[in-house]
Amino acid sequence: MRTSQLFISTKKEAPAEAELLSHKLMLRAGLIKRLGSGLYTWMPLGLRVLRKVEAVVRSEMNTAGAQELLMPAVQPAELWQETGRWDVFGPQMLKITDRHERQFCFGPTHEEVITDIARSELRSYKQLPANFYQVQTKFRDEIRPRFGVMRAREFMMKDAYSFHASFESLQQTYDVMYGAYSKVFTRLGLQFRAVAADTGAIGGSGSHEFHVLADAGEDLLAYCPTTDYAANVELAEAFAPSAPRAAAAAAMTEVDTPKQTACADVAALLGVGVERTVKAIALVTVAGEFVLALLRGDHNLNEVKIAKLEGMADFRFASDDEIRAALLCPPGFIGPVGINADIRVIADLTVAAMSDFICGANKPKLHLSGVNFGRDLPEPHIVADIRNVMNGDVCPDGKGGVLELCRGIEVGHIFQLRTKYSEAMNCVFVTEQNTQQAMEMGCYGIGVSRIVAAAIEQNHDAKGIIWPAAMAPFSVAVVAVGYHKSEAVKAAADQLYAQLLAAGVDVLLDDRNERPGSMFADMELIGIPHRVTIGDKALAEGMVEYVARREGEMKKIALSEALEWIQTQTKA
Amino acid sequence: MRTSQLFISTKKEAPAEAELLSHKLMLRAGLIKRLGSGLYTWMPLGLRVLRKVEAVVRSEMNTAGAQELLMPAVQPAELWQETGRWDVFGPQMLKITDRHERQFCFGPTHEEVITDIARSELRSYKQLPANFYQVQTKFRDEIRPRFGVMRAREFMMKDAYSFHASFESLQQTYDVMYGAYSKVFTRLGLQFRAVAADTGAIGGSGSHEFHVLADAGEDLLAYCPTTDYAANVELAEAFAPSAPRAAAAAAMTEVDTPKQTACADVAALLGVGVERTVKAIALVTVAGEFVLALLRGDHNLNEVKIAKLEGMADFRFASDDEIRAALLCPPGFIGPVGINADIRVIADLTVAAMSDFICGANKPKLHLSGVNFGRDLPEPHIVADIRNVMNGDVCPDGKGGVLELCRGIEVGHIFQLRTKYSEAMNCVFVTEQNTQQAMEMGCYGIGVSRIVAAAIEQNHDAKGIIWPAAMAPFSVAVVAVGYHKSEAVKAAADQLYAQLLAAGVDVLLDDRNERPGSMFADMELIGIPHRVTIGDKALAEGMVEYVARREGEMKKIALSEALEWIQTQTKA
Repeated sequence: MRTSQLFISTKKEAPAEAELLSHKLMLRAGLIKRLGSGLYTWMPLGLRVLRKVEAVVRSEMNTAGAQELLMPAVQPAELWQETGRWDVFGPQMLKITDRHERQFCFGPTHEEVITDIARSELRSYKQLPANFYQVQTKFRDEIRPRFGVMRAREFMMKDAYSFHASFESLQQTYDVMYGAYSKVFTRLGLQFRAVAADTGAIGGSGSHEFHVLADAGEDLLAYCPTTDYAANVELAEAFAPSAPRAAAAAAMTEVDTPKQTACADVAALLGVGVERTVKAIALVTVAGEFVLALLRGDHNLNEVKIAKLEGMADFRFASDDEIRAALLCPPGFIGPVGINADIRVIADLTVAAMSDFICGANKPKLHLSGVNFGRDLPEPHIVADIRNVMNGDVCPDGKGGVLELCRGIEVGHIFQLRTKYSEAMNCVFVTEQNTQQAMEMGCYGIGVSRIVAAAIEQNHDAKGIIWPAAMAPFSVAVVAVGYHKSEAVKAAADQLYAQLLAAGVDVLLDDRNERPGSMFADMELIGIPHRVTIGDKALAEGMVEYVARREGEMKKIALSEALEWIQTQTKA
Repeated sequence: MRTSQLFISTKKEAPAEAELLSHKLMLRAGLIKRLGSGLYTWMPLGLRVLRKVEAVVRSEMNTAGAQELLMPAVQPAELWQETGRWDVFGPQMLKITDRHERQFCFGPTHEEVITDIARSELRSYKQLPANFYQVQTKFRDEIRPRFGVMRAREFMMKDAYSFHASFESLQQTYDVMYGAYSKVFTRLGLQFRAVAADTGAIGGSGSHEFHVLADAGEDLLAYCPTTDYAANVELAEAFAPSAPRAAAAAAMTEVDTPKQTACADVAALLGVGVERTVKAIALVTVAGEFVLALLRGDHNLNEVKIAKLEGMADFRFASDDEIRAALLCPPGFIGPVGINADIRVIADLTVAAMSDFICGANKPKLHLSGVNFGRDLPEPHIVADIRNVMNGDVCPDGKGGVLELCRGIEVGHIFQLRTKYSEAMNCVFVTEQNTQQAMEMGCYGIGVSRIVAAAIEQNHDAKGIIWPAAMAPFSVAVVAVGYHKSEAVKAAADQLYAQLLAAGVDVLLDDRNERPGSMFADMELIGIPHRVTIGDKALAEGMVEYVARREGEMKKIALSEALEWIQTQTKA
């Protein structure tokens, strides 16, 4: 394609509302355009990228034996009422009332619709397993949509759903899909990691997330460089310290901490390590119970883990007023010593193994040192793993490795749903023994539009985007400097362009009448992997200039060898 | 692909709610599955057809210089308020309220969104013309969705929008798009007709519809076999009779018509042609005025034409009670003679040239014969073309031809919108003279999902669908009779299948363990254009059987020549 036939709209600055780098670059490169909150138009250049991602996803889904179909975006409420999710899904579901006052939603996901299809179309074990997928527009009414297409309200998703006569069959397909997902992200040229994941609101048992690794990622991932262990920090197990709790050695003493509320500041004041401190976090359960969670000063609460303890589902953090009412102390100085015996204390495994520790005194501007369970306060009511793992923690797989942490952007998620939906919707089949049985189900999602943003978070520099080969809107840019002034440049550029097209190379000829610097800046911002510059000066010597977007070093090559050179580069 | 890997779900009977043949066949062939009223899932086999249509549409849009983008399905109300269509569009627009109580719609069309993009991205005459298209899911909340995907609520549409610095530029692109549409339907192998059309609610000036010709079509089209004139009957002009009104010759006489209310019955009773009769149709304007329209007995009222007369927009038919109140006569015997002078009479051109005609007497069970304007009743208040053209009418292009009528299914519609939207939304550009001017606009729609149903209406027989080559889900079916029993059949089928795949032929190998009759019936119902049957008996002589779906005659060909034979057939 020629730039003169392509709508290009690059901008020097991104709008102020764009916070995330990928969002800024997508707006500046003119890949997307905002229509409203969480609503984006994919402009011609951006759509080329999106379609390339789609094509790779389709190809691997087909290879994995999944069959493409296309379900409606608009779904009747009745189906969601069968699984109880009409009320449970929450305000993220965009509900719609039609002209006949019937209720629908703009589908945020399609478990109910596909299960409705399966229960009427799949009747016998002979028809199982079956695996269906679609690439489709979905809508989730995020309370505060942001980060562009990374967390848009309307977005493009590949969702697949598999149906099975047995759990073994589900596990087989799950493994095949795990492999297919790995191939998708490998083919797209992305650094990614598959991690064990929490199953959350979708329900079911086993689950893995696929993350594109990037510093801006919302998720924290733990992995072991020496084994294949990898898990979302939400899920990664933290072990108790290997040494048992030491005996009390110090006396409990009040220490003045006039301005020190954070554990690190208290430790610094006392000249000890922060790992000698314990912090208390005040929580309130849905039943209204006030609960105190104890963590080592340098540890962080894992909200997913603690929510799984009895009575803790959907807990919230206590307000300052609630803390004062329960502990008679302002936040910043609270602790587990001397509190009302009715208050449930949940200690992390690490805290339970500590002795002679430092914690808030439950008195303004005071902390306590030399605190010991059993002597200065009762043993905690509950001892459990409620913290996030940290760099250097023992890997939970028991193979002796040590965990490292990194950040990721979730772009894929696979679930073993088991019979959660099939039982609720009576999606049964006739077994070989002529009995009826609920189907085992799996579901498998890829955030197609989010991948585009995630790829940019991982692949960019100060000049703009650096597309991996498989996602680039064009593979090669031929920049013709002086196309409208120099016959020689025009002839050489037109010829190379035609040769590349004939060789099947996805090439963009920049034939605009712009300053060279502006053309280079556009091609760099847009992120085209290979650039050939044709200008009068080099051309006089039969040469053109080649630059790889990622490396950035200019190399002169003979015009006569340019075709072969580019073919070699783009095949690499 | 193999049928063992493809979800096929054919049915002997279609559900009772399916009225239209294409709807029945699509359900029976398992191309679509109903989710709710006007909501259909495209099953794997149906989606293959839909994607083939999409691919042809995309290819021709790209060739025509249109650039693909993808706008959100969900659109903010504010944009529609700018053009005033938020209130005007009516209940077909599916309105949505989000969690923040902001109003949106599920886009029924995208003029507002694309104009919003154009006004911020296209600033100068140098950027014009520009032509953008998308292939996208749309929603129109039809009051009574029916006919399957022919008139679904959620459907797939290709919509393009062009922007211009001048009307001449718009006309050029309009002509290019007219040509591209013709190529699309030609490539899809459909018999179609482009007709001049009314611009309706979208607004603007020139407009053409593209119709797939089929007896079940909702639209009536008029065309001239000897010239290139073609128009929707809504629009086709009917001329006044060439001879002036003859002088009155008969006296006005009451005739008993005890049971005759229809003009044809009255004419039969009197032993004269129905073209001697005049029927009166009672209408009520939006202002509440009672109006009488006069048409020749064998002519039909053209509601689009009469609605364009002053005060007649959005008229409705009068109720029986309103007729009795205004004319003091029951329906069936009403006429223009002796009525209240306040009642406006609109006569068709043909009626105004009639003399000695027959009409209702405005008295129960009586008609009048020998009626004449100017003598028995006043000249009509308005004389205008308000009827549908008929077979044999003079062609309005003045070239002396005669009109014929046929039925069509509207699958495409192109409009010259002019500045209707650009003026309402301040979509202006800077001209070469440095002045500001509203852009000229065109819009161009294709009902992608409707094409699938329309193709079936045009291409079917008692056995099922007969796909045109370009739309077939598979080009060739290799039916292996006894695949699981005969080594020879399996070997021959596998080999031919592999050869066809390698040759790039879109082939389906039917390797199911079913009765031959059932496999043949499925392939015929599904409509695969070419079928090769491999069975033990013919194979013993080195032969296979070939049948073209449309012709239906079996032909034996040598297995060794089967590949070449099929390649020849599929390229034809």
